[in-house]
Amino acid sequence: MINEINAIVQDAQDAFEVFRNSDGLIRKNLLYKIAEELEGLGEKLWKTASEETNLPMVRFQGETARTCFQLRLFGDLVAEGSWVQAVIETADEDRKPLRKPDMRKMLVPLGPIVVFGASNFPLAYSTPGGDTTSALASGCPVIVKGHPAHPRTSQLTADAISAAVSACGLPEGVFQHIMSSSFDVGKILVQHPGVSGVGFTGSLSGGKALYDYAQQREVPIPVFSEMGSVNPVVLFKNALLDQAPEWAKTFASSITMGVGQFCTNPGILISVKSSALNHFTSLLALELSLTKSYKMLHQGIHDNYTKGVEKILFEKGIETIYHAHESDENLASPVLVRVSAQDFLRNPSLREEIFGPFSIIIVCENQDELKEVWQSFPGQLTTTVIGTEEDIRTNQELIESCCRFSGRIVFNGAPTGVEVSHATVHGGPFPATTDGRFTSVGSDAILRWVRPVCWQDSPSFMLPVSLQNENPLGIWRKINGHFSQSPL
Amino acid sequence: MINEINAIVQDAQDAFEVFRNSDGLIRKNLLYKIAEELEGLGEKLWKTASEETNLPMVRFQGETARTCFQLRLFGDLVAEGSWVQAVIETADEDRKPLRKPDMRKMLVPLGPIVVFGASNFPLAYSTPGGDTTSALASGCPVIVKGHPAHPRTSQLTADAISAAVSACGLPEGVFQHIMSSSFDVGKILVQHPGVSGVGFTGSLSGGKALYDYAQQREVPIPVFSEMGSVNPVVLFKNALLDQAPEWAKTFASSITMGVGQFCTNPGILISVKSSALNHFTSLLALELSLTKSYKMLHQGIHDNYTKGVEKILFEKGIETIYHAHESDENLASPVLVRVSAQDFLRNPSLREEIFGPFSIIIVCENQDELKEVWQSFPGQLTTTVIGTEEDIRTNQELIESCCRFSGRIVFNGAPTGVEVSHATVHGGPFPATTDGRFTSVGSDAILRWVRPVCWQDSPSFMLPVSLQNENPLGIWRKINGHFSQSPL
Repeated sequence: MINEINAIVQDAQDAFEVFRNSDGLIRKNLLYKIAEELEGLGEKLWKTASEETNLPMVRFQGETARTCFQLRLFGDLVAEGSWVQAVIETADEDRKPLRKPDMRKMLVPLGPIVVFGASNFPLAYSTPGGDTTSALASGCPVIVKGHPAHPRTSQLTADAISAAVSACGLPEGVFQHIMSSSFDVGKILVQHPGVSGVGFTGSLSGGKALYDYAQQREVPIPVFSEMGSVNPVVLFKNALLDQAPEWAKTFASSITMGVGQFCTNPGILISVKSSALNHFTSLLALELSLTKSYKMLHQGIHDNYTKGVEKILFEKGIETIYHAHESDENLASPVLVRVSAQDFLRNPSLREEIFGPFSIIIVCENQDELKEVWQSFPGQLTTTVIGTEEDIRTNQELIESCCRFSGRIVFNGAPTGVEVSHATVHGGPFPATTDGRFTSVGSDAILRWVRPVCWQDSPSFMLPVSLQNENPLGIWRKINGHFSQSPL
Repeated sequence: MINEINAIVQDAQDAFEVFRNSDGLIRKNLLYKIAEELEGLGEKLWKTASEETNLPMVRFQGETARTCFQLRLFGDLVAEGSWVQAVIETADEDRKPLRKPDMRKMLVPLGPIVVFGASNFPLAYSTPGGDTTSALASGCPVIVKGHPAHPRTSQLTADAISAAVSACGLPEGVFQHIMSSSFDVGKILVQHPGVSGVGFTGSLSGGKALYDYAQQREVPIPVFSEMGSVNPVVLFKNALLDQAPEWAKTFASSITMGVGQFCTNPGILISVKSSALNHFTSLLALELSLTKSYKMLHQGIHDNYTKGVEKILFEKGIETIYHAHESDENLASPVLVRVSAQDFLRNPSLREEIFGPFSIIIVCENQDELKEVWQSFPGQLTTTVIGTEEDIRTNQELIESCCRFSGRIVFNGAPTGVEVSHATVHGGPFPATTDGRFTSVGSDAILRWVRPVCWQDSPSFMLPVSLQNENPLGIWRKINGHFSQSPL
C-alpha cells in the first residue's frame, strides 16, 4: 500500500510541475468539461448515489446541478483571473536613502492536495465537490480518498473527472482517486511529505485527527476540516407572535431536510419563555409529526443517531416534545425536546451535535439568560436570528456580538442550504472547522490552496503574465496602492 | 503570575469588544499617534536601543523611520478601508427552484493577539513592530511579551504605545506589555483560552515551540512564527564575468549588514565553477577583510555564532576562504567558507542557518549539480538570482522552479532589506515560517489577524458600514462578481 501511495503522490507532484503554470482558460476548460461529464452520467449517477445513501433520486438531480454550477463558477473565476490578487509596486530609483525596488506579488498554488469527502453530499461535498473543484481551480493536483459509504458513486464521479483531465490533455496525476476503507491510508496520505494540504468534510473526531496528523509532520501543512455544528437559532417574541405557523413550517422542514443530515441543521432553538413560544413549539411538533421518516445514509449513522437521542432523553431536565414511535426501526424519525436555560448551561454535553433530524428548544427565563446561553457556544458554522424589525432593533447589540463565534449569520431564514457564491462563508471558528479564517464553499474556497510569492526587480519575461506591465489578462490589480484593470 | 496574566487577557478581551468595531479613522489616529510618540522619544530611544543591542545609534534613527512609516502605512490602509475585502451578492427573489438570498461578507478581527518580538530589530520587528501594528490595524488588541534582550527599549516603546492608546480615548486593554524572562509566561499566554492568535519573530526552535503549544490547545489558534532562513543566492557566470567587483561589494555588505543579524542574510552562495567565480570569491574575501568587526546583539548570540562557525569549519570538505583572527573576542568578524556541491548535498547540517556574518560558497561542477543543490532547500524567505539577461533567459525554467520554496525572489540585488509595501511577501514555506500563506511585513500582514463573516438577508441597520448599500466609506467591493466603489 505504501508503494502505491508513493507512486500516486509522485504522479501528483509531477503533474503539479505542469498544472501549476497552466493558464486560467485551461483550468476553466477542465472544470467545465468535468461538469459536462457529470451531467452526461445523468440517471445512472442519481440512481447509484440514491442506492448508496438512501436519499431520493430527485435529490441527486439537484445535487448534480449544484455541483456543476460550482465547477463552472470556479471555471469562470480562474478564466477571469483577478482571484490571484496581483499587487504591483513600481520602482522609485530616486528614493532616499535607498532606491525603492520593483515588487510584484500574486498567489500561487501550494502543491498536491488530499481530499476526504463527506458522506451526506456524495457529489457537492465529496469526490467532485467544492474541495476538489477549488483545488483544481487554483492549480493544485488533487488526490481524493473516496468515501467508503458511497464507493460506487465516488468511482463513477472520479472516472468522469479523469476523463475530463484526459480530454483536456492534462497529465493523469492532476486528479487521482484512492478507494480504501483503511483508516491508515488517510493518515499516510496526510503525513506524506509530497502532500501540501488537506480538505475534509465530516465529523469532529475525524477532522481533528487529520489536523493533528498534519501538525505532527516535519513540515506542518494546512488541514481544512469542516466538522459541522449545532447552528443555534434565536427566536424573538414578536416574530413568534406574528408568524408562528410559518416559522414552525420552515424549521420542521429545515430540521428534517436530508433526514437531518445537513451540517447546517438547526440543532438548537433558543427563546425567552412566552405563550407565543409555547404556541410555536406545539406547531413545530405538529409539523414534525406530518413529515415522513426515511432511512439515514448508512447503518452507522443511524445507530449513532438512535444512541444520541436515547442518551439525551435521560439528561437532566430534558422534556420530550415530539418523539414518534417508528414501526420500522431502520427509519429515522424526527425528535424535538425542550430544556430550561439553567439545565442547558449546566450540561455542556447538550451543546454537542446529534447528527440527524433532532433539535432542542432552550427556554430562557429572561433576556439575560438568553444572552448567557447564546454566548456559551463554541465556534459555529451559522447562527440564525428570527425576529421582526422591532425585535432586531431592540436586540441589536446582542445580535452583533454573535458574530464572535459564527461564520454566517442568517436573518429570518433557515440555516440549511448554503448558497454557492462569491460572498459565501461556509466556515467558522473551531470546532465548526479547524481554520475559521477560510471558507469551504463559494469562490473564496480557492484561497485555501495558495500562498503569496513576491518577485523583486524581476525582468518582465520572468514574471507570470498576471504581473506583467501589459496586463494581457486584463485582470484587476492593486498598482501602487490603487485598484486598476489597466496596463502599466 | 497566572492571576496577572488572566487579568491582562481579560482586559484585552474587554477592550476587543470596543476596539473590534472601531472605525478605520480611529485606528488610523491611533497608529499615527503611536508614530508621533515614537518620534518624540528621539535620541533617548536610539541611545537605549543602541546600548541594549550593540548596534550604532544611526541604525535606530533609520529603524525608527521604518517603524513609523509602517505604522502610517497601516493607518492609511485601514482609513481607506478596502482591506476588509467586502463582497456583496444581492438577492434574486425570482430564482428557481429557490430564491437567491442576499449575502454579504467581509473580514473581521480575531481577538487578542500575543506578540513576541525579535532581538535583531527592537523597533521594526519587536514591541512597536509589524506584528503589533498590523494586529492593531485589524482591530485586535495586542499583548506584547517584551524581549529580554532589550527590556528598556521594549518598555520605552510600550509606554509610547500606551500613551497613544490613552490619548485616543481607547481602553488600556488595547495594548499591554509584559516584561518577563520566564519561558513559561510565553507558553501560558499562547495557551490562554482568551488569546486568538500569535506573532513571533526569532529562532526556529522558539517559533516552532510556540506553534506546537498552540496546536495542543483545546481550540487551536494560528501562530505566525517568522524563523529566518539561509536565503540562497545563485550567481550565474556572465554576471560574475561582467561585474565581479560590484557583486563582491554588494554581498560583502549584505553578509555583514547589522553584524549579519538579518533574517534575510545571504547565508549560501551557489555557482558553477569558473575562473569568474574564483575571481569573485577572492574579491568577496577582500571586501569582507575591509569590513569592521562589531559586537553582536548579546553574548548568547555571539556564543552561538562562534560555536556554529567552529563546528562548520570541521565539516567534511569545508575550505576556509576568509576567517580573520579577531583580537577582541567580543567582536564578531565575518567568515566565508567554500564547499563542493557533492559535499554540501551529503551534509544536511550545512543547510542550517548560522546567525551572523557568515556565508558558504557552494561550487558546482555543472548546471545539473547547481539545479540539484538549489532544489534541495527547504522553505526560504528569499532566493536571489544574480545574472545577466542572457544568464536568466538561459536558465528561465530552473529559476522559475525556485518559487516552489521561497516567499520572495530577488533579481540582481541583495536579499537583505525588506521593503514595507503593499506587494511585500516576508514569509515562505516552513521552516522559514510556520505558515507560508501569509506575510509578516507589508500591508497584507493584516490578513493574519482576521476571518471572514457572512451576513445573510441582514437588515441594513445590522450590517457593518462596509457592507451597507450606500457604501459610505467609498471602499472597493466585489458586487455580484464585479469590483466597484459605487453604492448599490
